[in-house]
Amino acid sequence: MTKKILPLSLKDITVGGSFWSRYMELIRKEVIPYQWDILNDRIPDAARSSCIKNFEIAAGRVQDEFYGMVFQDSDLYKWLESVAYTLAVYPDAELEKLADDVITLIGEAQGEDGYVNTHYRDPKTRWTNLQHGHELYCAGHLIEAAVAYHDATGKAAFLEVAKRFADCIDSVFGEGKKSGYPGHQEIELALYKLFEVTKEKKYLNLAAYFINERGKKPYYFLLEQQRPTYKEVFPELTTFGQDYYQAVAPPFEQKVAMGHSVRAVYMYSAMADLASEQNDKALADACEILYRDITEKQMYVTGAIGSASIGERFTSAYDLPNDLIYGETCASVGLMMFCRRMNAMYGDAKYADTMEIALYNTVLAGISLDGKGFFYVNPLEVEPKKVENNPNYKHIKPVRPKWFDCACCPSNLARTVMGLGLYAYGKTDEGLYVNLYCEGSAKDGMREINVSTSYPFGDTATLTVQGGSFDVYLRNPQAAPVKSVKINGRPMDVKTENGYMVVTRDWKNDTIEIIFDMAPRYIYSVADVQVNAGKAAVMRGPIVYCAEQVDNGELLSRYVLDDNAPLTEVKMPQGLLAEGVALQTKAYSYDNKQTTLYGTTKPTLQPCDLKLIPYFMWANRGENEMRVYLGSLALAQ
Amino acid sequence: MTKKILPLSLKDITVGGSFWSRYMELIRKEVIPYQWDILNDRIPDAARSSCIKNFEIAAGRVQDEFYGMVFQDSDLYKWLESVAYTLAVYPDAELEKLADDVITLIGEAQGEDGYVNTHYRDPKTRWTNLQHGHELYCAGHLIEAAVAYHDATGKAAFLEVAKRFADCIDSVFGEGKKSGYPGHQEIELALYKLFEVTKEKKYLNLAAYFINERGKKPYYFLLEQQRPTYKEVFPELTTFGQDYYQAVAPPFEQKVAMGHSVRAVYMYSAMADLASEQNDKALADACEILYRDITEKQMYVTGAIGSASIGERFTSAYDLPNDLIYGETCASVGLMMFCRRMNAMYGDAKYADTMEIALYNTVLAGISLDGKGFFYVNPLEVEPKKVENNPNYKHIKPVRPKWFDCACCPSNLARTVMGLGLYAYGKTDEGLYVNLYCEGSAKDGMREINVSTSYPFGDTATLTVQGGSFDVYLRNPQAAPVKSVKINGRPMDVKTENGYMVVTRDWKNDTIEIIFDMAPRYIYSVADVQVNAGKAAVMRGPIVYCAEQVDNGELLSRYVLDDNAPLTEVKMPQGLLAEGVALQTKAYSYDNKQTTLYGTTKPTLQPCDLKLIPYFMWANRGENEMRVYLGSLALAQ
Repeated sequence: MTKKILPLSLKDITVGGSFWSRYMELIRKEVIPYQWDILNDRIPDAARSSCIKNFEIAAGRVQDEFYGMVFQDSDLYKWLESVAYTLAVYPDAELEKLADDVITLIGEAQGEDGYVNTHYRDPKTRWTNLQHGHELYCAGHLIEAAVAYHDATGKAAFLEVAKRFADCIDSVFGEGKKSGYPGHQEIELALYKLFEVTKEKKYLNLAAYFINERGKKPYYFLLEQQRPTYKEVFPELTTFGQDYYQAVAPPFEQKVAMGHSVRAVYMYSAMADLASEQNDKALADACEILYRDITEKQMYVTGAIGSASIGERFTSAYDLPNDLIYGETCASVGLMMFCRRMNAMYGDAKYADTMEIALYNTVLAGISLDGKGFFYVNPLEVEPKKVENNPNYKHIKPVRPKWFDCACCPSNLARTVMGLGLYAYGKTDEGLYVNLYCEGSAKDGMREINVSTSYPFGDTATLTVQGGSFDVYLRNPQAAPVKSVKINGRPMDVKTENGYMVVTRDWKNDTIEIIFDMAPRYIYSVADVQVNAGKAAVMRGPIVYCAEQVDNGELLSRYVLDDNAPLTEVKMPQGLLAEGVALQTKAYSYDNKQTTLYGTTKPTLQPCDLKLIPYFMWANRGENEMRVYLGSLALAQ
Repeated sequence: MTKKILPLSLKDITVGGSFWSRYMELIRKEVIPYQWDILNDRIPDAARSSCIKNFEIAAGRVQDEFYGMVFQDSDLYKWLESVAYTLAVYPDAELEKLADDVITLIGEAQGEDGYVNTHYRDPKTRWTNLQHGHELYCAGHLIEAAVAYHDATGKAAFLEVAKRFADCIDSVFGEGKKSGYPGHQEIELALYKLFEVTKEKKYLNLAAYFINERGKKPYYFLLEQQRPTYKEVFPELTTFGQDYYQAVAPPFEQKVAMGHSVRAVYMYSAMADLASEQNDKALADACEILYRDITEKQMYVTGAIGSASIGERFTSAYDLPNDLIYGETCASVGLMMFCRRMNAMYGDAKYADTMEIALYNTVLAGISLDGKGFFYVNPLEVEPKKVENNPNYKHIKPVRPKWFDCACCPSNLARTVMGLGLYAYGKTDEGLYVNLYCEGSAKDGMREINVSTSYPFGDTATLTVQGGSFDVYLRNPQAAPVKSVKINGRPMDVKTENGYMVVTRDWKNDTIEIIFDMAPRYIYSVADVQVNAGKAAVMRGPIVYCAEQVDNGELLSRYVLDDNAPLTEVKMPQGLLAEGVALQTKAYSYDNKQTTLYGTTKPTLQPCDLKLIPYFMWANRGENEMRVYLGSLALAQ
């Protein structure tokens, strides 16, 4: 809590270069239009959404029955949030008109008292099942979308809808009113955003209320279930304990990341917002303890979190199965959100390091290179025949499906990619922060930074800075440590602070050239991760690599890495991003061809070639085996 | 189908020695009385059984409601079958009186038409849900118990009940009558047993009918669900396909072991019975193909089968996760049953080899050394904290629970141990077969074999044979190959046939002394078993070994076997069977103490001691980590 770094406005940032422009084009041209068609039930072979129709019913435009999940409304809000980020960086009158029209529809569906939810039309049913009803969750997404839309367009209508809904919630919940908190956190961070844009303290207080109520005894969710108004929504979740909802103890007392991983990181994000805003040391400490628990004990090397599909949840320290993993794309987006707030609160680059790992590995793995397929679940090891026939792996897809009934991941991906500038830069009165290196620019008043780089594959970033006297904070990536810095062509020793290189001067179009260490390296797990004993992964910069069957044949378990063999950079295989870097090495192939399933025949180890590709590009060449962790002969000398 | 080996009567066999006597005493003195108390709801903290009460209600002795699972009746039948085997080897008037009384009760609960089932009291509900109703399953267990009781006591009453019920079933099912087949196979092998004891062909035909109907299209279970009389029993099973029930194709066409593994091996057992009895080449071939599919692709080194807990089922070739495994005790009992019939049909010792592996590892692991705890599930790798916190492992228990709501495994274990003689010996007109080496004796008319051995730990078996001129078939165990044979003290070359050493002579109290190779050995998996790449297990004779935390500390994944290091035989640890053999070796300890979860710090490998105990004795010294597969440095020269 030493400093509070603020985001820049998306409108003052450009993110481009062939790498990011490509993803942004996919979001604009594939994902957003496709999702709009889904919301309108225009894709013939997709599951029925009814999302827009539900709003039309609630607005009184058509007569019909609500259809869908209790959280169906949030699909529209998430779409609108992605649209808002898109409009901020790519003005598009036609898209804005579409958004304005649907915002009008939302307004029509809003009640006199500000309440909006197309599922809970009967006022008697409202707020009767906070645990599973997702009303506050949907409200949160409405608010987030409205704030983003206001930021992008300056228009007030959607923000007014959001404020009226927030006021409605504020009239219901709080000290002396109804108690409780949501089963799926989201409203907390959204209310904080609403506070930031409106400066109205009641929204901050309401966010804090939901955080502070959580985990108090007797548990609200247990009380709620006793009431005559309670109605089951997800009977299959009733056996889950309070840990699933991070409601075992008050958040400021929580020390272990537990339960549903998306809910967890959304809550931690709000906790960081509040801790920072309210200078709440206990809450800030809890955030740090939880961050450390995740990154030191419960995170995959790819930045994935959530080891179990049942409950889509955290399990226990060092339980990181590579094949059974859930590793939801949304959870890694949420981890990025949490890390961005921690970085803003503490001004420490380590959080941005984690953010970067999650982004370039799990988050980007969530979308196919043609923008048409999406992973919810991001395994580090897949055998297609195994996952097809063993029900424990039914959540694992060997190729990205086209869309999902529950469409959270594609939208979360879309808003993250389009809003990348919010993660890439930060500002304080004294300076500008560069947290992610990507081609583009950032402006804050007179202060301006232009970045030219092909990071995360290229090893150089050239920054041009102008705008007078201020500090430039350049993250020194743990995953690609800075080898040298030149300013205006001259090598410079720069001071380092909390993982940043800090350069202070009166900037007049000065050039900073950074060389990163992009040497590929073997990565080992601490011995507590039993599943990775005797194994290694390969990274180059922030990119985790994997072996695919299409390059290496089947039975990938047979590969044994020889850490004395160099990892040579080679051209990417056909069908993947040509600007990427593939790796090749001399490895060994373990084999045992005995004729019985078990026997005393010793295995053989033969030299062989092994090709590795960036993990986030896996499963773009058809169904095949994939592995991040391979056998390893490495030993300390 | 070259020969048909018959079992000897249990009354003509003794099985003893300290090893087996101990287990038999546990069954007699702990398991059978405890289970009787359970059936009578006399154990205060156990789940309600109501089994006996259900029969009292059906018999009209008391007024109350049925309570329990649809297959609750089978608990009593399984208990009676265990009692029958017990009485065959340990006459016990008090126990026999108890059994006679409860058989009287079953008779009272039987309807005029022969039907017995305390759940389906309303005749209109009978046979309406063959897929999940378990009526034919319960009937099968009634019949099996009745046949065993008749064999043991010579009494006819229970067998009469069974025949009347079988006649009732025969009046309902068959060509020109009702079609269909059971969701859980069991009736087929039971009807075959009833045929064997009564010689009435209608029972054989009915068994064949149920086998032959299975898998015909349109699928019976789908037709049944369309009928107005259909009522759900297990809604959670409705998503399972026909493969779960081995009903995808007619049994004689099946080539891959699939679905619920207990149902599968029960069916294969009946198929082997019928193939052998009816000289049905196609069915016999299917049995052999299925046996090979199991043992060459889907069986664990411990003789466990069923890789997935969801559906308690087979999955696909080489999918053998050591930690996620189901590996039900009953499934390995069923595998023994199948193997015994295959051995009888083909006269090949290889089936008895498989039987032995299943017996000494998975089946015996199912019961604690004090006889009070039982495993359903037999994992090859357990980390207690992991299984406690990751819902994927909720079926894995790190120590044996006291009893189960669904009490199949303890009863199956009990009947297998008490009926061990049926597995140990066989006969033809020409000779006697020794399939398992255990202290005791077997008689068939004048022919008699006495065995003195401490196998499976000792390396010697001394057999005394008398009774004239006949062949003695001595299994040469694949897992403990015979090193030498002496007859009357003189070394002898004996001819070998289908895995048996065959000795033909006019036996007059002659002594055969066999020395087995009990040298401990490292066992490797064929490379297709990806989860075992780079790993090895240890066996000594038929016994699979494991490492436990109590002997070796936590993080067992760190142990790396050095196959150049001898496996030394040492005293068993305190608390385990003293007559066992523990192993000790110089191994290596893999470690990585880096301060981050992931990093470039290379691991270390330090020489260390490693202690291994027989797998079936694991989890008898409290909750702790256990592993069968450990890292291995072994390579072919």
